[in-house]
Amino acid sequence: MPETLTLYTAKICPYAQRTELALEEAHADYTRYEIDLSNKPEWYAPRVNPASKVPAVAYGGPKTAPDQPSPESEKIAESLVLLEFIADLYPESNLLPKDPVLRAKARFFIDAFSTKVSPFYMGFVARGEPFDNLLKGFEALQSLLPPADKGPFALGSQFSIADAAVLPFIARLYVAMKNDIGGFAKGVGPASLKILQEDEKYKRFKAYVNTLFERESFKKTFHEDVIAETYKKRFGRPE
Amino acid sequence: MPETLTLYTAKICPYAQRTELALEEAHADYTRYEIDLSNKPEWYAPRVNPASKVPAVAYGGPKTAPDQPSPESEKIAESLVLLEFIADLYPESNLLPKDPVLRAKARFFIDAFSTKVSPFYMGFVARGEPFDNLLKGFEALQSLLPPADKGPFALGSQFSIADAAVLPFIARLYVAMKNDIGGFAKGVGPASLKILQEDEKYKRFKAYVNTLFERESFKKTFHEDVIAETYKKRFGRPE
Ligand SMILES: [Ca+2]
Repeated sequence: MPETLTLYTAKICPYAQRTELALEEAHADYTRYEIDLSNKPEWYAPRVNPASKVPAVAYGGPKTAPDQPSPESEKIAESLVLLEFIADLYPESNLLPKDPVLRAKARFFIDAFSTKVSPFYMGFVARGEPFDNLLKGFEALQSLLPPADKGPFALGSQFSIADAAVLPFIARLYVAMKNDIGGFAKGVGPASLKILQEDEKYKRFKAYVNTLFERESFKKTFHEDVIAETYKKRFGRPE
Repeated sequence: MPETLTLYTAKICPYAQRTELALEEAHADYTRYEIDLSNKPEWYAPRVNPASKVPAVAYGGPKTAPDQPSPESEKIAESLVLLEFIADLYPESNLLPKDPVLRAKARFFIDAFSTKVSPFYMGFVARGEPFDNLLKGFEALQSLLPPADKGPFALGSQFSIADAAVLPFIARLYVAMKNDIGGFAKGVGPASLKILQEDEKYKRFKAYVNTLFERESFKKTFHEDVIAETYKKRFGRPE
């Protein structure tokens, strides 16, 4: 039986949403505490995460107010460490299945995302670097997806930490493309989205993404208005 | 009961040694196959690892010669994915303990190594960039080590994937320093080693490293002569 869990998170942050997705999928009992990343509370780094980033978890110890975490609780950071942690705490969630080979597939999928998609995300959204970099990454992910008749998710029929790891980034990218907000030239956002939605080459990937967007855990943890507004301020072209 | 396992590896490669350490610690029954990285067999990429890197594992399926891996076996790559895989296959090895918090600590330690040490390794060894970069990374690792009276390893009393992940890199660095082989100026190798061995500031880290160097799994999987010779060819100053 898991102990008290407080999640320090932020609506804007894709790394943080990874952990929210996993906790929702596990039907975990947890306290969500929003950290204002543009004005972090002074107690956050010393008491919760010395790296001063979200997500972080305070786990165990007596139940306290989130802004007064107990020194007795364990403080855990890093989104991928936390995905594994949540899967370990809630084995019945099947966020990681029992089969060692399937577990390795989930981790390999995440590694492919970390090395082939993630490094190019801000390049496109913030600095208008070629969308092609991301397309190559999506092709790599797509090649790892099972055939659609085995199930819609990265591991087939079961939602796993592999899906939770990639979805927050893809969803934010779609917001940037759809609303044409980014360091790229005017019109590049919708044109890039059109490639992903209409090019036959990305058909399997498109179906994958659409399935993830329909997930209840996603709807509950994705705050499109906050993201669109923040991206507009940070990356938008002057009117 | 784990199935047939073939490890494709190379004595020179620290990523590959990670998996050898884990397999030895687990007393696994496996076949070790050396890949000549300077002259890779043509069947390796198509039949084992499309990325053409070591380590990789062929797991399951009928027992075959390593250079004729069965299409029925699962092919698994990426050293950190493989460390988790080996820990999953051999739970009684305690390469990852059962406690979710300790598992998170092991993964956080590996993440700290990946972000704070690993990016500076080749900079120092191959290009003579400041040793200070590595020292800062070792300080970060040291701050994560438990007090010595809790046990010598990253998790305390039990050798884990955290130790297996960092040891191959540290050991190769020591070979470079001790033999003064690297892109750095003459004498910088031994002088750098002296800091780690004599500066009180790194006392806990030094004790940690010395414990790891004594491990039987390390002695069996570390080929100092091969590494010294290869590093001399690649990074040595002209005589
Ligand atoms: Ca990797």
